[in-house]
Order: sequence, then C-alpha cells, then structure tokens
Amino acid sequence: MMKFKAVVEYDGTLYHGWQLQPQRPTIQGELEKVLLRLSGGLIRVHGAGRTDSGVHAVGQVAHFEMAWTASPEKLRGACNALLPKDILIRCVEPAEPKFHARHSALSKTYLYQILDRPLRSCFRRYYTWHVPFGLDVAKMNEAADHLLGCHDFAAFGAPTDGTDSTIREMLFTQWARDPGSGLLQFTITGSGFLRYMVRSLVGTLVMVGQGKISQQRFQDVLVSRNRAAAGQTAPPHGLFLAAVSYGNQAEFELDGTGPIDIR
Amino acid sequence: MMKFKAVVEYDGTLYHGWQLQPQRPTIQGELEKVLLRLSGGLIRVHGAGRTDSGVHAVGQVAHFEMAWTASPEKLRGACNALLPKDILIRCVEPAEPKFHARHSALSKTYLYQILDRPLRSCFRRYYTWHVPFGLDVAKMNEAADHLLGCHDFAAFGAPTDGTDSTIREMLFTQWARDPGSGLLQFTITGSGFLRYMVRSLVGTLVMVGQGKISQQRFQDVLVSRNRAAAGQTAPPHGLFLAAVSYGNQAEFELDGTGPIDIR
Repeated sequence: MMKFKAVVEYDGTLYHGWQLQPQRPTIQGELEKVLLRLSGGLIRVHGAGRTDSGVHAVGQVAHFEMAWTASPEKLRGACNALLPKDILIRCVEPAEPKFHARHSALSKTYLYQILDRPLRSCFRRYYTWHVPFGLDVAKMNEAADHLLGCHDFAAFGAPTDGTDSTIREMLFTQWARDPGSGLLQFTITGSGFLRYMVRSLVGTLVMVGQGKISQQRFQDVLVSRNRAAAGQTAPPHGLFLAAVSYGNQAEFELDGTGPIDIR
Repeated sequence: MMKFKAVVEYDGTLYHGWQLQPQRPTIQGELEKVLLRLSGGLIRVHGAGRTDSGVHAVGQVAHFEMAWTASPEKLRGACNALLPKDILIRCVEPAEPKFHARHSALSKTYLYQILDRPLRSCFRRYYTWHVPFGLDVAKMNEAADHLLGCHDFAAFGAPTDGTDSTIREMLFTQWARDPGSGLLQFTITGSGFLRYMVRSLVGTLVMVGQGKISQQRFQDVLVSRNRAAAGQTAPPHGLFLAAVSYGNQAEFELDGTGPIDIR
C-alpha cells in the first residue's frame, strides 16, 4: 500500500458537498467509487476540508492509500477518465506515510466571487454571487483587515466538531477586482475555518460595502461571539476552496497566470 | 405596436438551438413565452441567425413588435426577471419600422473557444472544446487567412435554405490566445454563414494545427466545394454567436474590456 496526495478540482453545483453521504452524490463518494473500480476494494479518501453543498474547489487536497504499481501520472489519467466531467484530479503524487490531508494542513485559502453590476450573467451564474448594486470595495477591505490575526470567530460560524474551539488565525484577506473577468474576488487565507465562516464573512462584508453595517458595527460583531449578530450568509455557489498549504511554499499558485479556470 | 431590437445572451447547453420547435426548449420559444406573459398575446421573435443545439450567444440580435408604453429599460427588466437564468436580454431599444434582425444584418461575428492543454477543466467544460494536444497556432492563422474575401464555402456547410447560394464573404479571421483565461479563441466575421460552417472550419483548422492537413490541402478543400473533403466538425459547446453588425460601428465590443462573460 502506498499513500498518495491528490489536488482535486470540482464544480460543486450538482453535489451535496464533499463528504460522503448515503444515497446522495458527493465529491468524496465519486472519488471513492472510481478508486474502487481501479483497485477492486474500498479506498477511503480523506479531504483537507469539507466543502458544503454547492461549493466548488480548484485546490482541494485529499489523501488515500492504495496498491498501485504504475506511475502517479497513470493513476491521475485513469481517475480522470472515469470521473464525471465536473470532478478532476489536477495532480497526484506519493506522500509521506505521516501525511494527512487535514491534520498536516497549515493553512487554507478560499476565494469568493461576486458579480457586482446591475445585469446578471448567463455564463457566470453558477460561479458568482450576483450583487446588483454598487459596493464600496475600500470599506470592505478596511473591515476585512480586522479579521487578521487570532480571533474567536463564533459570530461567523460553528465548529465542525461540537467540542472544537472557535478560535482561528487569519493570515491574509483581500477584496480585489480581477482584471481578466472584471469580477470582485475575496481571497482569505487562514489556519482553519468554521462551518459557513467564509460565506458569513462575505455576506456581512457585503453589507459593509453597501453601507448597511458600519466599520465599528463590524468589529462589534466580531467580538460579540454571537452568531445572530452577523449579517447575511452569502450563497454557496460563489465560493471556491482555492488552496491548501502544507509547507513553506504555496502548493497552488493564485496569481493571474495560474491554473485557476474560473476567471 | 412598436418595433424593438434586443441583444440576447444565452447559455445554449440545455436548449435545442435558437429556433422554435414543438415540445422542445429553444431560445426563441423561451423569449416568446415571456413576451406572451407580458403582453397577453403571441409575439413572434425574429433572430439574426439560428444557432444550433448547444451553441451559445453573447450578442444574438432579435426583433419583435409589441405594444409597450413603459421604457425599454423596464421591458428589459421585466423580461430578465421572467426568463430562465441561462437566457438574458442585454439591451432592448426601439427600432426603425424597416429594421429586420436577419435581413438588415451586415455581418456576424462568431467566437470559438478551445482549451488546448492535456488536462481538462471542470469549469470550462460547457464553454470550450478540449483539445489535449499541442496546436500550431501560426499554421492555423496562415490557413485561416485564405478564408478572407468571397468564396464558395460549400465544402464547409450547407445553406440553411435549399435554394440559397453557398458564397459568403469573410471579413476577419483570427486565432489568438486570450490573456485572461489562457484559452485559444477563434474569431471570424463574415457577411453570413452556412449551417455548421464555423464548426466545420474550426474542426478543419485544428487538423491544420495538428499537422494532419497541410496548407495546400486546406486550400484544396476550400475550392473543392465538397462537404466530404472538409475535416471534423468541432463540437457545438465551444461556439458563441458574438455579435451582429448593422452599421458602421460595432454594436458589440470584442476587446478585453467588453461585456463578454466567457473569458
């Protein structure tokens, strides 16, 4: 048996999230189905993080153990040939025996896309949140700056495990307009995220951008630890798990020349 | 009754093309359904050109006559609120009584998108043709240059009307890499197009780019007037009706800052 690390891209539109569920299509379920076909036995796939129903990924990371004697490239090719067209293994490589997609992760980066103009778009409807009124991006960046560092994010989400802490460290936040697509993109890197946290942050920051929530109010919400104090939760289809980092160097490039196919 | 000109965007994935068909979803059918709801009577919608099943548009043009006393902006808003999310009226404006979306058109521009790399893409799967081997873009441009001017394009398509001529004039052709998306895009402007013509040209030009068809052979195919001499027909999902021109100025911008949401 050999341990493999895989970087996985998926369009989450038609799936009930990452995690295996009986009788419902999930990303983990589709991956395990393909590995079962290739190996003849059940192979458990462990993801770096669960993504919710409708959420996408360009850089989800997973590990699994498998007896495979051909090259990793052949394993990737075999998987991609069998996977549905909305799931893709971007790369697969041998991993250290100790490697664990979730436990070894140092940080995760999420990307949220907003189409902020009056007219909706046919082609971006599954990959952006359409906010048809003007947003003050400077205000949204000012508020997002307060998220940096260690905070108790209980106001913005629930721990995935009932006994878990709600303290997380945010390393990078940015609202910026993508020059290629014209979309407004929010990038956030953190040590970890609570459930619904990115969508709750985005929804609340959009209310800051609309002038519905002041800078001071946003900071009050953050320290309140009160889930009811936060603003709206942004819809899942604008959200992408962009990258998971395990070391000093970025595993996944987020600059404009990188392989993200959503811009 | 007032005549209106509308610029229509649609994701053709789920439709049986532009033209009305009984019992099948089409773009024309969906537009007429919405205008029926708004007006209470049948309003015939005339498109500049039929697009085939699975083909998209960012700049299809249509005209229709309707009794409407509010502003064109309100008409657009009402239509877009009722239309399915994969059809959008980009703009609607009053038209001259003589205006006819098809007969008044001076030229049409199509765009074809190719993802030319080994790995497929989850997010571009409905909007690009995945060609996983290297293409010689210079060769494809050299061959495409021979399409400029007036030619009998019988080798590349059938007239939509049985008695029609197969001679068309091409005004512009270009293979270029879009810097934002990295996609290989073919842009072609002509006085008119035969059925399947753009897809047949793209499929044959791709074979030139792969070295399967020489420059001389490509020119021979063009003069052959023999449909069987052409290469493969590219799949519909990479094709977009990008713009229809009625005058001296471009009605639709095709530069990087324009409103095309597919890059």
